[in-house]
Amino acid sequence: MLPPMTTRIDGRLPEQLRDVKITRGWLDHAEGSVLIEFGKTRVLVAASVTEGVPRWRKGSGLGWVTSEYEMLPRSTHDRNDRESRKGRVGGRTHEISRLIGRSLRAIIDYKALGENTIVIDCDVLQADGGTRTASITGAYVALCDAVEWLRERKLLAGEPLTGSLAAISVGLKDGQPLLDLCYEEDSTADTDLNIVATGDGKIIEVQGTAEGAPFERAELDALIDLGLKGCAQLTILQREALA
Amino acid sequence: MLPPMTTRIDGRLPEQLRDVKITRGWLDHAEGSVLIEFGKTRVLVAASVTEGVPRWRKGSGLGWVTSEYEMLPRSTHDRNDRESRKGRVGGRTHEISRLIGRSLRAIIDYKALGENTIVIDCDVLQADGGTRTASITGAYVALCDAVEWLRERKLLAGEPLTGSLAAISVGLKDGQPLLDLCYEEDSTADTDLNIVATGDGKIIEVQGTAEGAPFERAELDALIDLGLKGCAQLTILQREALA
Amino acid sequence: MLPPMTTRIDGRLPEQLRDVKITRGWLDHAEGSVLIEFGKTRVLVAASVTEGVPRWRKGSGLGWVTSEYEMLPRSTHDRNDRESRKGRVGGRTHEISRLIGRSLRAIIDYKALGENTIVIDCDVLQADGGTRTASITGAYVALCDAVEWLRERKLLAGEPLTGSLAAISVGLKDGQPLLDLCYEEDSTADTDLNIVATGDGKIIEVQGTAEGAPFERAELDALIDLGLKGCAQLTILQREALA
Amino acid sequence: MLPPMTTRIDGRLPEQLRDVKITRGWLDHAEGSVLIEFGKTRVLVAASVTEGVPRWRKGSGLGWVTSEYEMLPRSTHDRNDRESRKGRVGGRTHEISRLIGRSLRAIIDYKALGENTIVIDCDVLQADGGTRTASITGAYVALCDAVEWLRERKLLAGEPLTGSLAAISVGLKDGQPLLDLCYEEDSTADTDLNIVATGDGKIIEVQGTAEGAPFERAELDALIDLGLKGCAQLTILQREALA
Amino acid sequence: MLPPMTTRIDGRLPEQLRDVKITRGWLDHAEGSVLIEFGKTRVLVAASVTEGVPRWRKGSGLGWVTSEYEMLPRSTHDRNDRESRKGRVGGRTHEISRLIGRSLRAIIDYKALGENTIVIDCDVLQADGGTRTASITGAYVALCDAVEWLRERKLLAGEPLTGSLAAISVGLKDGQPLLDLCYEEDSTADTDLNIVATGDGKIIEVQGTAEGAPFERAELDALIDLGLKGCAQLTILQREALA
Amino acid sequence: MLPPMTTRIDGRLPEQLRDVKITRGWLDHAEGSVLIEFGKTRVLVAASVTEGVPRWRKGSGLGWVTSEYEMLPRSTHDRNDRESRKGRVGGRTHEISRLIGRSLRAIIDYKALGENTIVIDCDVLQADGGTRTASITGAYVALCDAVEWLRERKLLAGEPLTGSLAAISVGLKDGQPLLDLCYEEDSTADTDLNIVATGDGKIIEVQGTAEGAPFERAELDALIDLGLKGCAQLTILQREALA
Repeated sequence: MLPPMTTRIDGRLPEQLRDVKITRGWLDHAEGSVLIEFGKTRVLVAASVTEGVPRWRKGSGLGWVTSEYEMLPRSTHDRNDRESRKGRVGGRTHEISRLIGRSLRAIIDYKALGENTIVIDCDVLQADGGTRTASITGAYVALCDAVEWLRERKLLAGEPLTGSLAAISVGLKDGQPLLDLCYEEDSTADTDLNIVATGDGKIIEVQGTAEGAPFERAELDALIDLGLKGCAQLTILQREALA
Repeated sequence: MLPPMTTRIDGRLPEQLRDVKITRGWLDHAEGSVLIEFGKTRVLVAASVTEGVPRWRKGSGLGWVTSEYEMLPRSTHDRNDRESRKGRVGGRTHEISRLIGRSLRAIIDYKALGENTIVIDCDVLQADGGTRTASITGAYVALCDAVEWLRERKLLAGEPLTGSLAAISVGLKDGQPLLDLCYEEDSTADTDLNIVATGDGKIIEVQGTAEGAPFERAELDALIDLGLKGCAQLTILQREALA
Repeated sequence: MLPPMTTRIDGRLPEQLRDVKITRGWLDHAEGSVLIEFGKTRVLVAASVTEGVPRWRKGSGLGWVTSEYEMLPRSTHDRNDRESRKGRVGGRTHEISRLIGRSLRAIIDYKALGENTIVIDCDVLQADGGTRTASITGAYVALCDAVEWLRERKLLAGEPLTGSLAAISVGLKDGQPLLDLCYEEDSTADTDLNIVATGDGKIIEVQGTAEGAPFERAELDALIDLGLKGCAQLTILQREALA
Repeated sequence: MLPPMTTRIDGRLPEQLRDVKITRGWLDHAEGSVLIEFGKTRVLVAASVTEGVPRWRKGSGLGWVTSEYEMLPRSTHDRNDRESRKGRVGGRTHEISRLIGRSLRAIIDYKALGENTIVIDCDVLQADGGTRTASITGAYVALCDAVEWLRERKLLAGEPLTGSLAAISVGLKDGQPLLDLCYEEDSTADTDLNIVATGDGKIIEVQGTAEGAPFERAELDALIDLGLKGCAQLTILQREALA
Repeated sequence: MLPPMTTRIDGRLPEQLRDVKITRGWLDHAEGSVLIEFGKTRVLVAASVTEGVPRWRKGSGLGWVTSEYEMLPRSTHDRNDRESRKGRVGGRTHEISRLIGRSLRAIIDYKALGENTIVIDCDVLQADGGTRTASITGAYVALCDAVEWLRERKLLAGEPLTGSLAAISVGLKDGQPLLDLCYEEDSTADTDLNIVATGDGKIIEVQGTAEGAPFERAELDALIDLGLKGCAQLTILQREALA
Repeated sequence: MLPPMTTRIDGRLPEQLRDVKITRGWLDHAEGSVLIEFGKTRVLVAASVTEGVPRWRKGSGLGWVTSEYEMLPRSTHDRNDRESRKGRVGGRTHEISRLIGRSLRAIIDYKALGENTIVIDCDVLQADGGTRTASITGAYVALCDAVEWLRERKLLAGEPLTGSLAAISVGLKDGQPLLDLCYEEDSTADTDLNIVATGDGKIIEVQGTAEGAPFERAELDALIDLGLKGCAQLTILQREALA
């Protein structure tokens, strides 16, 4: 007997991405910018270029890339207090900001970038699961535009991008691996895994967490397989957007 | 001899608004939401309804309306540090948040609202002058939708809105009053005035500041006249958006 | 029939200021200092001169003037928590500090001031309405003394003061414009307007707010007229104090 | 040969207090208030009474007394940044606030006070040495007035004050004990000791610090002797002020 | 030809743990406590039991387990500023605290724990790589003792531990997987992976990061295999310590 | 009749120290480190040397010594929240940090130290009374090792230590002076005095506080006598540890 083809809340197949839209140049001032949508999840990514690097890196001839992630207070189903009002950045915000920056730096040749800094701001306008992976996937496109901006001004010492980069979430629900979880799926999944991969299928970061019961090695393997497939599909969509 | 008709940077007449776009329902979760654009200025307004009121108001039978304003780090020409990272909300952010909340409360009948709270978040996605007045103008529309949401659920004790509300900036440049300043005009104007008015032409708030030399009483009068005209035009646009 | 002449809580006429006392040199260390009293409202103003300017202004040949306002915890009827203990400066404190600084800068010739900084501290020892306008009115006198201190030491490049400056609050109560509201009047007024004007009657800042119902253009005009008269009276008292 | 009688900067004898002025009722709103002056040192003390006690003490039938100390930014020779702007209270401020509160609590019968809280705010308007001891000496007087306020309203369960309290600083300079150091003396003394004593000559707190070289036991004894004499003189001045 | 047996800085074999010491009951007050050492890495873990749960969980009948991680300022080669002095908790600290808490909660039966809270404090006394995995491994032992403490007092509703838990780091250096990296190895590894597993070999959390170049799927598999082996060894050491 | 010989909770004589253990070199990275134990009180002291001095001291040729004290959250009987999480350092922590730094600086010859900074971190692993005096006593030993480290590297301009330093607490209970109070004694003592003295019996700091009733001059003298005896005993133990 065949397994049920569409067990998902929104009618998708287990291995199907949500509708992904990548709108470049959504902002007028930023050197690179993208509005990226994974279904109802909507993240505004801005890449800001500044000449020079942080103090601890000055005179090294090397560039720097970093990122900050934040959610608007009403991006979520219920309103959350602003971190600026609370006077402190929460642990989750810190953790995701660090993940995005670390992932982007994995495809950067600092020497080719020269002593320039690129800051990637990922602001979640609406959240429906997968905001960190949408952020990373969009950040790559905004980064490309920022690099192009530097290239046009002859501010680069070479090609700073050593590859492309995309990210997706996968989850295990009742033993079934699912691609690109929406919020409702995410909150009921047994296991949640985020994967960041290059366009040629190598892994940059993998984070898997047992939300319910601990999981088997074989389940982990299935999730990684599915995640890499999802990243490959996103890589194609990124290329189309950048064309 | 006639004065020059188009002395403005973007070719507008002195008394002409920028293109104003009001997109309702831009968010899926919020009870009311608007993306409002005054030319390149783009503000995302979300109205969040919660049952109940702050502790100091409990049991009074009265509702509450408040607002928070913030700019995304790359809404501006150059990137600004996030207030959440600095660990403190800046004076300008505080000042504008207070202005928006105070203005909205001027058209609220707390008793009719019942013990419900509406929080209006105004997040500036892109800034090109007039972000506080665009916020207020958009906030009124989002507020209407949030009130409608309450009405449909029969959570109101009457009609909580006692009128409509719009806001615009005006400035004096070389003795000439100009309506709805863009950033470049704003930063070179001699005097800057923001006015918040009701749909029937009464004043809720007026704030005029000499940026350069102190100004004459007659100049103040001309600015107020022009500001009231601008608010009247915005009132029409709000009605169309709400139709 | 004539309107009643004395409808006010403290027996004043509608157009009458409270007793204003300006005590210069109240502090021994500060380059300029004033204890200013508007009735029971009592503000200690200190002007501190330092050589040099903030980093962003260095080498410009221009001076800088800024201000900080704060209330002592028991300046009010009930004790308020200290902002230092709360770890954050409140919105109202920020807003008033900014207003005072902006107002003072409107009468400063930065070039004549040379690369010197004057910080004006306004600490409210007792509050009974009008603390921001008393602060501004006193700040001008303390500023004069600080400028004189610089002049005596030949640290100026010219006359840094382009005029004088005073501020007053006015309000509308039952349709009647009232000058210089005390706390009890202020908390029941329908409209509240603060005006900052130069000694020759020009306007530096005007801020009017509907506390209750929105107000008519004609009412605004009456309030501005009365405010300008109040500033003119304060200008005379400042001159006497400085004589 | 006799030692020189007047070696002190301001011509005082070694065992002589500065001019001490205690002005009761300096504030209109506070239940008790004092402007206390030790020479140029000027501290405004406000005692605020509230019904009820902090949560951890509720239902115990016992009252509470606490204190906060702070210096105005230009109380000192050079301006200091506000702790509210720095977002944190400094160590010295904390330390002195705790000392004042602890000292006052040593003469309080909590049971007689009933479930009432008295907060003593000591704000240094001008500093010339000895601000903590002036604060404590003034705080006792303000506390008496606050207790009287409670007594008049029949809110006490008995006599909450078990004694009186005064404090003074003493220092060792070139082997000579000096009473009530002014700032210039304090900053050049070898040893600095603050003593808090009751009106009947018992000790509540003693804090002695070697600013330069460590000191001998005999020197400590001489300082304590002198400090107790100073407290006795202050006790007389407090009684006169309270008469 | 055989590969070299000892390529590691400290002479260990690739698959060899450092010396692991687990000292139970290192503290007198805590309900459970462990000093855990992985070579020079030394973490003091304290488990604190309190009756009751956080407000959002009250009345649910369910318990709660959470964790906080911090490094002493001189646990590292160079001294780091204290986060308490900086006034904010850093991203790395947040991230690791969250990881520890999440991992422990994966083996907790909240119902059996009853409305009790266990807080696990992991303070790094000395850091030489692997502080988060040492923390988790030690936390399990301290947690067991805290649970035993509850059991002896008959405060449990059943067996709250559904399994055991250990964690280890693995890394890829020049293509060779290495177990339990010390600081020097960690800072030069190409890939770094932390794995948290149960005593019966299931996975709770896996986090792999490309520090240098992105890594292959096969390399990830090898790292996970080695990590699971390491966790199995630690499980044995935990059992011995708990015996 | 003889007084009872052992009235103390733990069987000690009134003038008896708890068991004192000083373990040097407890840390591998720090230039000086000590685990010091006074009975159950256990403090980890680390001395960190850095070349250079704070900005305000640069070019003076003088060194600097400072200290930070903190308690681990579960060093106490009940767990305390971390100050890093609260976002502010408490008054007690500030006060003790300042005391330790001030005490150490009293035996430092800044000129001989040269432009080097030594930071002494005192982290209380377990608290049972006397944590500040144990910190100071241990800090002297760690400081000696840090100075030795500098000497070996020929980074000193002379002998920076002008003497040795120890500290102890004494208390008055039912009229009986007791040496080295444990927590339970400390919390029930009528008077509490901490004394810091040099190896040759001079006083650096004395802080006495009436916890209950104010105390007599004669009682103070007895406490100081006993404290100096305790410091002398600790001096011997320090010498043994440093031998």
